[in-house]
Amino acid sequence: MRQSELFTTTRREAPTDEVARNAQLLIRAGYIHKEMAGVYSYLPLGLRVLENIVRIIREEMQAIGGQEVSLPALQDRLVWQKSGRWSDEVVDVWFKTALKNGAELGLSFTHEEPLTALMTDYVHSYRDLPRAVYQFQTKFRNETRAKSGIMRGREFLMKDLYSFSRDTVEHEKFYERAKQAYQNIFERVGLGATTYLTYASGGTFSKYSHEFQTLCATGEDTIYVCEKCHVAVNQEIIDDLQHACPQCGAKDVRSATAVEVGNIFSLGTKFSEAFNLSYLDEQGASRLVVMGSYGIGPGRVMGTIVETLSDEKGIVWPKTIAPYALHLVVLGGRGAETAAVLAAADQLYTTLTARGVAVLYDDRDVQAGEKFADADLLGIPLRAVVSAKTLAQKKIEIYDRSTDEKKMIDEREIHTLL
Amino acid sequence: MRQSELFTTTRREAPTDEVARNAQLLIRAGYIHKEMAGVYSYLPLGLRVLENIVRIIREEMQAIGGQEVSLPALQDRLVWQKSGRWSDEVVDVWFKTALKNGAELGLSFTHEEPLTALMTDYVHSYRDLPRAVYQFQTKFRNETRAKSGIMRGREFLMKDLYSFSRDTVEHEKFYERAKQAYQNIFERVGLGATTYLTYASGGTFSKYSHEFQTLCATGEDTIYVCEKCHVAVNQEIIDDLQHACPQCGAKDVRSATAVEVGNIFSLGTKFSEAFNLSYLDEQGASRLVVMGSYGIGPGRVMGTIVETLSDEKGIVWPKTIAPYALHLVVLGGRGAETAAVLAAADQLYTTLTARGVAVLYDDRDVQAGEKFADADLLGIPLRAVVSAKTLAQKKIEIYDRSTDEKKMIDEREIHTLL
Repeated sequence: MRQSELFTTTRREAPTDEVARNAQLLIRAGYIHKEMAGVYSYLPLGLRVLENIVRIIREEMQAIGGQEVSLPALQDRLVWQKSGRWSDEVVDVWFKTALKNGAELGLSFTHEEPLTALMTDYVHSYRDLPRAVYQFQTKFRNETRAKSGIMRGREFLMKDLYSFSRDTVEHEKFYERAKQAYQNIFERVGLGATTYLTYASGGTFSKYSHEFQTLCATGEDTIYVCEKCHVAVNQEIIDDLQHACPQCGAKDVRSATAVEVGNIFSLGTKFSEAFNLSYLDEQGASRLVVMGSYGIGPGRVMGTIVETLSDEKGIVWPKTIAPYALHLVVLGGRGAETAAVLAAADQLYTTLTARGVAVLYDDRDVQAGEKFADADLLGIPLRAVVSAKTLAQKKIEIYDRSTDEKKMIDEREIHTLL
Repeated sequence: MRQSELFTTTRREAPTDEVARNAQLLIRAGYIHKEMAGVYSYLPLGLRVLENIVRIIREEMQAIGGQEVSLPALQDRLVWQKSGRWSDEVVDVWFKTALKNGAELGLSFTHEEPLTALMTDYVHSYRDLPRAVYQFQTKFRNETRAKSGIMRGREFLMKDLYSFSRDTVEHEKFYERAKQAYQNIFERVGLGATTYLTYASGGTFSKYSHEFQTLCATGEDTIYVCEKCHVAVNQEIIDDLQHACPQCGAKDVRSATAVEVGNIFSLGTKFSEAFNLSYLDEQGASRLVVMGSYGIGPGRVMGTIVETLSDEKGIVWPKTIAPYALHLVVLGGRGAETAAVLAAADQLYTTLTARGVAVLYDDRDVQAGEKFADADLLGIPLRAVVSAKTLAQKKIEIYDRSTDEKKMIDEREIHTLL
């Protein structure tokens, strides 16, 4: 993509009412646009990052047998009354609307109810189990305050997977695979080292559920970390565990501020009971399906990466989710030089693009200082500079955004760095 | 995908309240699930078809320079009051909801307003134009009746592109390119022959706008077709044109029933005026941006294909958008034969999948008649049968769903048919 054609530009200031650092940086860099508190548009560069995160999550969900669907936002009151979650007194984040005939509808804040109801059409026998079904779908939550940028929105993308198993043994087996898939996801998006599998209350149906918490100074949660096991305990159950690591028993867990980037939860038969999602086992007896739910918000992951990996100059994207692999910057020479420098940069852009490398090419007619400041803000991992100086040496200058290191390389070496 | 693991199955009957043929077939085949009138979930096979249509549209939008974004569903009242489209008396398909503080919100039925407002952050000079911005985003329309299945939903996916040009000359140039892109799309999804570029009223800003209308017995529109030019005129302006083709002037246009599958529209300065989307031209004078909008609903395209290409046995997908390229069906032999037949089919499935062919493999332990009836209903273009008979001949039976032709081929010939 030629930057001169990209419709977004960087901005000096974020809107004054934007207090979250992730949104401030993403707005200034032109990745997102604030529509109102907790509601953001994704612009071309931001959508590319979001789609990269989605792609990684999708691959991991498919690897554990997940089948992808897409359920609607509009929700039927009758479905939610079956589980007792229609009332605004039970669920305080509903957005409600209505059909012309007056029938009340809700906007999905989660999808356990409609998916469980849907599965009753397809699950009849033990042969129809186990199943894992997931989607990437917009959730709507009527938050009283929405001051965390894209980390807690009123409208946001969520990957939610639901598992349907014959019994708790089969469920536990899937739950462990999902746990590993989640760990793979955080590793792949660049949050592996700072994200902790965190023990949380299991509710009625199991001893624990699990959150994935990323260390983050602006997070809303306090967790208790066992560095030895690389796990943590959330505040809710730390007293029950007598401040000890649930894996090694060590008492030296240290408190830390974190943001919840994912959670996995055993639902037991709560929803299958409400919707009579049952099956005939091998002996012909009717049994309720055992369910689990597994959530992760790609936008929150993106926001967390910005919060935790950016520096004073701007965003620093991990390679796996960056909007472009390479930021090619051409610096105009003087007089006759200019055409030669531009031609060399154009040529490099064409060659790399033809090879399938995702390149953002800063071909704009602006000063070098502005180009570098913008590139720092945008945070593409690798920068290649073509200038009169590099051309004279028949080299390209490569800059690594995360290590701040520069070096001169031959053009043909570029692919080894990508 | 092994069909034994796919969570959906075919059903004998659609819900009794479902009157649209497209939804009846898609529900029976397990492509979609009805949540309520005009609101459907996409199940794994249906989502694959929808994604194939989306991919084709995206490629064509990128080819004309479209930059992809994603705007939210939740809409701020203040933005829509600027264009005068907030009132339910002006727009009768709004779904409205509210924040906890009582502030009213709308659910997007289109996105001209928020995108025009957004562009004022990025368009300042003639150098910032032209631009084309598009998205695939959910639209909500509070239809009084919703009886057309996925062809007219209350919640549906829409690709909407908006163009921003310096003047009408630049706009017209882009408009022509968009028109061609739309024709490419309908050609590629298999509706080229039955879809007509249809002249419609241009509103205030141009002589004509254009619809793309597909001949369809259950369509809601009447169009007047000129076969010679492969264009049509909609009912609204046929009298103004004195029942003549606007291209060749021929008077023998014939009336036909059709469904509108896309539309392109010159907006002039209607929205740029409302939001003061202006730029400084090369002389430093302030001028309003000239806009266009270009819509197409991937779900409606999918529904139209089902309505127009299915037969009495079920759906017939064009190759370009089918959920799988090949439906591999194994028929159990008797006794000792069974294992050999299954092994051959498993082997073929593994080989093809490794080669990147999208295969749905009917490995279920059910009768041949049921397998064939299901395969006819599912409508995957090519079927490969492995049975004791084909194994004895060291061949594979290939069946073409659209031509109803069968032939025996060597395994290595399969790739020539895909």
